[in-house]
Amino acid sequence: MVTLAELEEFLGGRLLRGDPATTVSGVAPLQRATPAELAFVADKKYVPRLKDARAGCVLLREAWADDCPVPVLAVDDPYLAYARASRLFEDSPAAPGIHPSAVVDSSVRVPETVQIGAHAVIEAGVELGEGVVIGPGCFIGARVSIGTGTRLMPNVTLYHDVSLGERCRVHASTVIGADGFGFARRPDGWERIAQLGRVLVGDDVDIGASVTIDRGALDDTVIENDVIIDDQVHVAHNCRIGARSALAGCVGIAGSVTVGADCTLAGQVGVSGHLEICDNAHIAGQARVTRSVVAPGGYSSGTPLEPTRQWARNAVRFTQLEALQRRVVELEEALATVQAADESSDSRSE
Amino acid sequence: MVTLAELEEFLGGRLLRGDPATTVSGVAPLQRATPAELAFVADKKYVPRLKDARAGCVLLREAWADDCPVPVLAVDDPYLAYARASRLFEDSPAAPGIHPSAVVDSSVRVPETVQIGAHAVIEAGVELGEGVVIGPGCFIGARVSIGTGTRLMPNVTLYHDVSLGERCRVHASTVIGADGFGFARRPDGWERIAQLGRVLVGDDVDIGASVTIDRGALDDTVIENDVIIDDQVHVAHNCRIGARSALAGCVGIAGSVTVGADCTLAGQVGVSGHLEICDNAHIAGQARVTRSVVAPGGYSSGTPLEPTRQWARNAVRFTQLEALQRRVVELEEALATVQAADESSDSRSE
Amino acid sequence: MVTLAELEEFLGGRLLRGDPATTVSGVAPLQRATPAELAFVADKKYVPRLKDARAGCVLLREAWADDCPVPVLAVDDPYLAYARASRLFEDSPAAPGIHPSAVVDSSVRVPETVQIGAHAVIEAGVELGEGVVIGPGCFIGARVSIGTGTRLMPNVTLYHDVSLGERCRVHASTVIGADGFGFARRPDGWERIAQLGRVLVGDDVDIGASVTIDRGALDDTVIENDVIIDDQVHVAHNCRIGARSALAGCVGIAGSVTVGADCTLAGQVGVSGHLEICDNAHIAGQARVTRSVVAPGGYSSGTPLEPTRQWARNAVRFTQLEALQRRVVELEEALATVQAADESSDSRSE
Repeated sequence: MVTLAELEEFLGGRLLRGDPATTVSGVAPLQRATPAELAFVADKKYVPRLKDARAGCVLLREAWADDCPVPVLAVDDPYLAYARASRLFEDSPAAPGIHPSAVVDSSVRVPETVQIGAHAVIEAGVELGEGVVIGPGCFIGARVSIGTGTRLMPNVTLYHDVSLGERCRVHASTVIGADGFGFARRPDGWERIAQLGRVLVGDDVDIGASVTIDRGALDDTVIENDVIIDDQVHVAHNCRIGARSALAGCVGIAGSVTVGADCTLAGQVGVSGHLEICDNAHIAGQARVTRSVVAPGGYSSGTPLEPTRQWARNAVRFTQLEALQRRVVELEEALATVQAADESSDSRSE
Repeated sequence: MVTLAELEEFLGGRLLRGDPATTVSGVAPLQRATPAELAFVADKKYVPRLKDARAGCVLLREAWADDCPVPVLAVDDPYLAYARASRLFEDSPAAPGIHPSAVVDSSVRVPETVQIGAHAVIEAGVELGEGVVIGPGCFIGARVSIGTGTRLMPNVTLYHDVSLGERCRVHASTVIGADGFGFARRPDGWERIAQLGRVLVGDDVDIGASVTIDRGALDDTVIENDVIIDDQVHVAHNCRIGARSALAGCVGIAGSVTVGADCTLAGQVGVSGHLEICDNAHIAGQARVTRSVVAPGGYSSGTPLEPTRQWARNAVRFTQLEALQRRVVELEEALATVQAADESSDSRSE
Repeated sequence: MVTLAELEEFLGGRLLRGDPATTVSGVAPLQRATPAELAFVADKKYVPRLKDARAGCVLLREAWADDCPVPVLAVDDPYLAYARASRLFEDSPAAPGIHPSAVVDSSVRVPETVQIGAHAVIEAGVELGEGVVIGPGCFIGARVSIGTGTRLMPNVTLYHDVSLGERCRVHASTVIGADGFGFARRPDGWERIAQLGRVLVGDDVDIGASVTIDRGALDDTVIENDVIIDDQVHVAHNCRIGARSALAGCVGIAGSVTVGADCTLAGQVGVSGHLEICDNAHIAGQARVTRSVVAPGGYSSGTPLEPTRQWARNAVRFTQLEALQRRVVELEEALATVQAADESSDSRSE
């Protein structure tokens, strides 16, 4: 429960209407928010809906306040204010302490503010910052370093020598530091290359569930500060993901790729190995990146969804495109011949 | 071991030939089924193979019975009958009981018919129906509800407040209820939006291994009854998947997507955020869905597989398609001019 | 720490320069390798960089030795030699023994050379070869067989009756033997088909993190010897992956597919069900395989990455390709008419 006065102070906005002592206990979409809940309007197009609002308070821009029949907290960026306010209503992790079933190597110093869940395993030489939370069933390999305030959800695996910065979050079943996919060909099979690098994750990095980030072969795999990574993403060995970049669900990045700062890779984007993607590149969903991207902006590949029968005809024509192009060239040449003949015949007939 | 008489009663078919007391102890493909095994023929094209059958009994349509030299159990839908019969020969989970290494919060009432595996963790306020099976290493967050007869395989993670219906199955390493990928942009990074919704899964839902289904931001993510989901699928926050729809391996669905009832999304299909897919839509493998689908039927995107050298030429031409189109338009115009000139010259020469 | 003499003997090369008693304690890229580290040059184009080398020893071809100012170990295949040498500097698993928190069924014979990690669960009838390592949190189902020297990283799940050969490695959170995605349609939903086959994995198979390999429906899913599989790959039921084939990250293979020997499927390749891919086929990243591949060689599909604005115009034209083709045919016919008319008019005018 939070009072509107507390919200005003926390968000740095201005309470235009409503009793500062009123409390809200959650957030809800504008249409169904009750007087006990906070709502928000972040886009002008939803302002007309304000007239039916019943929320205990609405976060919005001051210019829209007159359209709102219920208490208003005016802020510059209502969506950002909603994001910050939402965190007040989130489940907090359990109290600090080490669950008796956890297996923690005797070499590990565990600050009193740390919480280690049931059946977690922490190997020798691990360093844990203040307020770290290790979920149940996590495995933390030897010499891993986890910064202050970082939280691992259940069943996360961190291989040896991985380093996570401060205030990171890693969701369930994610694996950081598994071997990169490195093999040398032998006549009779594959010779595995030991992956001797590490994974270095910066501060304020958010990593989804079932993500895999592989350790480097010789150098390290690096995730810079403020990167956000959605579920089921794969980052291969020796990649570097630049600050504030966002990798959406199911993105796959092959080895030794550098992604710049402030990039977005939408869902299922695939990037081939050894490429560079410059800062501020925005790659659309399912795009196939097989060359470096050297200029900022939006990029796409693929073809639009069509009814299968119609698609099948066009798809066959795609496989004949080179031939079609040649036919157009031949047409252009033949037509030019006809035109030339016509002109000469015209001039003859004049 | 099941007798043919028991099979006849269980499947509701008609034993046309064979001793009702004969037993079978498994199912096998027609060609290698021994007299101790059950086989089936579901498609007319395999009827000619019946003459070599050695199975203890064959499930088939009554019309095909005369072609079968071994005992026959005639049924209306042999494939469905095989599906039902196959379950008689499956490994059953171990006996009910709570493994001593499991960590179960004292607030949780565990029915006597429930089985909780080794090293499972069950947090406060969890509700478990009769006959629930929680595999070893599972994590069940606070206030989760699991319906009668639902079974979780090992190392599944259910975050707090997730609800699973009755008779569901969830395979290993799957994560339900992790945070949706929701962030507001700040000038210097991302502000995480707390994901305050839940995941609600209906009855008879089958979920594969390494699947991720994220909790909603404000509203809930909903999986309706009888949905089937293959391995490695990702369902983002606030999606709704309609009854009886099937999501094949590696499908990725972005946030706030509604998939109708009786849809099939084949392997690796990707769906962009905030779209609606109507009932009875069938999306082909790897298709790229970036607009809502408003009519039932089959949909596809992409290009066919080609030898790389040939593909590369066609792919370059794809990037010149707009230019090629313009050249065709110019050709049409130029030809029309020639035709007009020819006609006028013809009329002049007449 | 390894001496150059030991390296020479282990790799079968020839130490051309340097004190055999010199030791190296790691491997590093040529440019930053210190005198305490080993480096390598596998490609002629990097030979000019040798002049600045400070490494304790460089693996290279004898022909390049004169360009190298530091000790040289000459080998036939420097990349393969690097692969083999890299393994000398890898973390080795902990000492053999069964962690007291592991739950091992009393029927299981555990050789003294085996290591079983904390919170691992081993069910009845499991067979473990010499030197097997089971990571913390792994689940090993009933009657699983694991060959000599095979190593499972943390939180791996092997379902009942799975068989792994010798010297395999399986990375964290991987699931082998979950149910294949098999259902028969009922009017009101889906009837699950029990998956009664197994997964059989050969020798020297390397499997990445968060991989899923499903058990067969009636027959077995088979991974042959020396196959290498990257993270997040999905192999569905009843597939067979041929010897020495490589599946890169996020590949998805539908049911009953046969991949031949010595194939490579690059990242995010998708293969539809019931296809056959012949030996020595090499499928480019994100390709969409919907027909069997019957000839060795390289294959691709998809379209190149383009700036989104440009792509959007071309993509629309793709959906009109059949119409464009028709327009070209019509142009050809119209032009032929004009040409015929011109010729007849020419002949008339002569």
